[in-house]
Amino acid sequence: MKASIITIGDELLIGQTVDTNSAWIGAELSALGFDVCRITSIHDRKDDILEALGEAARISDLAIITGGLGPTSDDITKQTLCEYFGTRLVPDERVLGMIEAMLQRRKMPLNDNNRRQAYVPENCTVLTNAAGTAPGMWFERKGKVFISLPGVPGEMRHIMNMHVLPELTKRFRSQVIIHRNIMTYGTYEAKLAELLQDFENELPAAVKLAYLPSYGVIKLRLTGSGKDRNVLGDEIEKQVRKLYKTIPEYIYAENEETLEIVIGNMLKGRNMTVATAESCTGGEVSHLITSVPGSSAYFRGGVVAYDNAVKTGVLEVSEESILKHGAVSREVSEEMAKGARRILNADFAVAVTGIAGPEGGTENKPVGTVWIAVSSQEGTVAEMRVFGTDRLSNTRRSSLAALNLLRLQLIRR
Amino acid sequence: MKASIITIGDELLIGQTVDTNSAWIGAELSALGFDVCRITSIHDRKDDILEALGEAARISDLAIITGGLGPTSDDITKQTLCEYFGTRLVPDERVLGMIEAMLQRRKMPLNDNNRRQAYVPENCTVLTNAAGTAPGMWFERKGKVFISLPGVPGEMRHIMNMHVLPELTKRFRSQVIIHRNIMTYGTYEAKLAELLQDFENELPAAVKLAYLPSYGVIKLRLTGSGKDRNVLGDEIEKQVRKLYKTIPEYIYAENEETLEIVIGNMLKGRNMTVATAESCTGGEVSHLITSVPGSSAYFRGGVVAYDNAVKTGVLEVSEESILKHGAVSREVSEEMAKGARRILNADFAVAVTGIAGPEGGTENKPVGTVWIAVSSQEGTVAEMRVFGTDRLSNTRRSSLAALNLLRLQLIRR
Repeated sequence: MKASIITIGDELLIGQTVDTNSAWIGAELSALGFDVCRITSIHDRKDDILEALGEAARISDLAIITGGLGPTSDDITKQTLCEYFGTRLVPDERVLGMIEAMLQRRKMPLNDNNRRQAYVPENCTVLTNAAGTAPGMWFERKGKVFISLPGVPGEMRHIMNMHVLPELTKRFRSQVIIHRNIMTYGTYEAKLAELLQDFENELPAAVKLAYLPSYGVIKLRLTGSGKDRNVLGDEIEKQVRKLYKTIPEYIYAENEETLEIVIGNMLKGRNMTVATAESCTGGEVSHLITSVPGSSAYFRGGVVAYDNAVKTGVLEVSEESILKHGAVSREVSEEMAKGARRILNADFAVAVTGIAGPEGGTENKPVGTVWIAVSSQEGTVAEMRVFGTDRLSNTRRSSLAALNLLRLQLIRR
Repeated sequence: MKASIITIGDELLIGQTVDTNSAWIGAELSALGFDVCRITSIHDRKDDILEALGEAARISDLAIITGGLGPTSDDITKQTLCEYFGTRLVPDERVLGMIEAMLQRRKMPLNDNNRRQAYVPENCTVLTNAAGTAPGMWFERKGKVFISLPGVPGEMRHIMNMHVLPELTKRFRSQVIIHRNIMTYGTYEAKLAELLQDFENELPAAVKLAYLPSYGVIKLRLTGSGKDRNVLGDEIEKQVRKLYKTIPEYIYAENEETLEIVIGNMLKGRNMTVATAESCTGGEVSHLITSVPGSSAYFRGGVVAYDNAVKTGVLEVSEESILKHGAVSREVSEEMAKGARRILNADFAVAVTGIAGPEGGTENKPVGTVWIAVSSQEGTVAEMRVFGTDRLSNTRRSSLAALNLLRLQLIRR
């Protein structure tokens, strides 16, 4: 079964909003076995919407449409859907009741804009929205399904999870597609492709390999398609085992597990804690660690020591080390890690100090130079990395390198 | 002039990668006056690529295509472009030389995969890539321009900035389009729409208003189109002034200025510094502040006090306050802010303590409850906010609320 995704909104086309809905919907539909064959983003314009609906009907069995259902007048999706399906808007008391209840909870008054959101096309199945004011709508025509959802990510996901995914699971049976992700860290794409050349050549026709690099993490995705879930599952499993044999030193996890999830699980399993000391990353390492639900079980806290006075005053880095070796040095990174471990009373501490850019580089220490250290009862290790010239990419790469160095120390415990 | 964007890659359709390239390209082309009428994401499949190229040629004058140019065998865009334009791949010595030089600098060996990247279609103009190994390609046919670029964001942007945007600027003259963004914080979309109802009704036909909400920030975008840049500019300016009169209390900046940029400029202008004390946001506030280049001029540092022992031990919050009022309380947020200001020696300190979820809520303090405080020489202010149930949305909303409270204190100085 083929699926299309249509996202509507001028903001997507003029680049003021990144379309994250499509990726989320694509992942969910793929997991159900749909072949998501196209994602299209279009303007809030009647003709463009009508044309996209027609194309989706031509190339796919299912179309998920997001956006253009807001309370403001630039949102015209609902009227256009009425035109496409030859129907009209009628008030829906149940939707109005839900909107009233939601606004009451948030202590907001009901206004005309909200009241308009309680009008729905007469021939659709209404998908109630407990997360916001715009309901979803399920249309069918000539065996094709069209589902219109609000563009606000939280509301879209809520309606998908509550109504759409359960119903699609019930109604559609399709070819079995299995995705399996092997997460790697520690080398670059062309090198990995070289190491995996024989592996790729020997892959059976039903299995495909893709490389998905992101700030130093390279996700290897195996995709298999076939008729029999068990046969296909066995084949994928066999290939995964082969991957582990071929590049054991680079694989750190499977499926969508991030480094912060992996180190969280390792810390929990060992009943140990971690703290952070950050200069150039400015809190990104602790932000990544604490993005994992339940991280309070193993994350003690961190110090963002942007100014050198905070390095010496709070983390007790020696002024001599900064003067002699510079703030971006093995010595300072190690002292930051040791200081954070002591002051924040953690089993492990990870420290990062570097030059994120765009300013601040020198000939010996160009922008992108970073020292990373991890301290524990066993001692302190440090490594230098040199990344590129882009500030945000440098801090993200540095943060992931720090988490990976922590992971390597945790493996030994 | 109309433009299409085509992004190629299985990872986009199965949702493993969010397409950020389209937004960036869309913004750049819109700024040049192009009407970006469609963004399409498709699989690494020959037929899908050929169909997308045909559609782009039908509906637009310019197509920018990204992805599928990597060194690995799942990348087939180059071969498919050869088929579409009826040409063949030939080796390009200049590209090979650049790839060799780049790998040498990064101390990586040249392998066969890299060598393949130096083959380019015979009839295209090669756009050299100093940021990576895959060059860009510029094709023309029947007055339409097709530009193929690597999918790695940094490389795509590099080639766009170096080659594509200057050439497009030279060659195309199109209708004048002016976007102007007014950034607001402090209310919700339906309320803003109510306040702006008369404003919207009185807008001239050439000017459109859109609402772009994101974690509490609502960007109002005015888009004008016309023939004469000066006339249109005056009209937009007039509408902006009217907006300032209608909702003065909610506007905090113009254009893409984030709260962290605004507070950074305010601190620099006053020659003052800031520090952070974070619990539930786990370093996100300091990460936002330090994402701004040059923030080391005014950001001293921060303490991520996840564990209560760090709140008392490092930030010197009193144990009595935590016992009596709980870690999520006015008192603790205020003591965190005062402690951070004192210990990190800053003019301002901003503190956040709350329950990010999904666990940890109680009847009196549900998930999403956050206390925010700002301390300065003038005293300490605090406010409570109650957000939703999603962890990542809660921490982002809390971080922005904290930056906004800091901004309100800075305005008075």
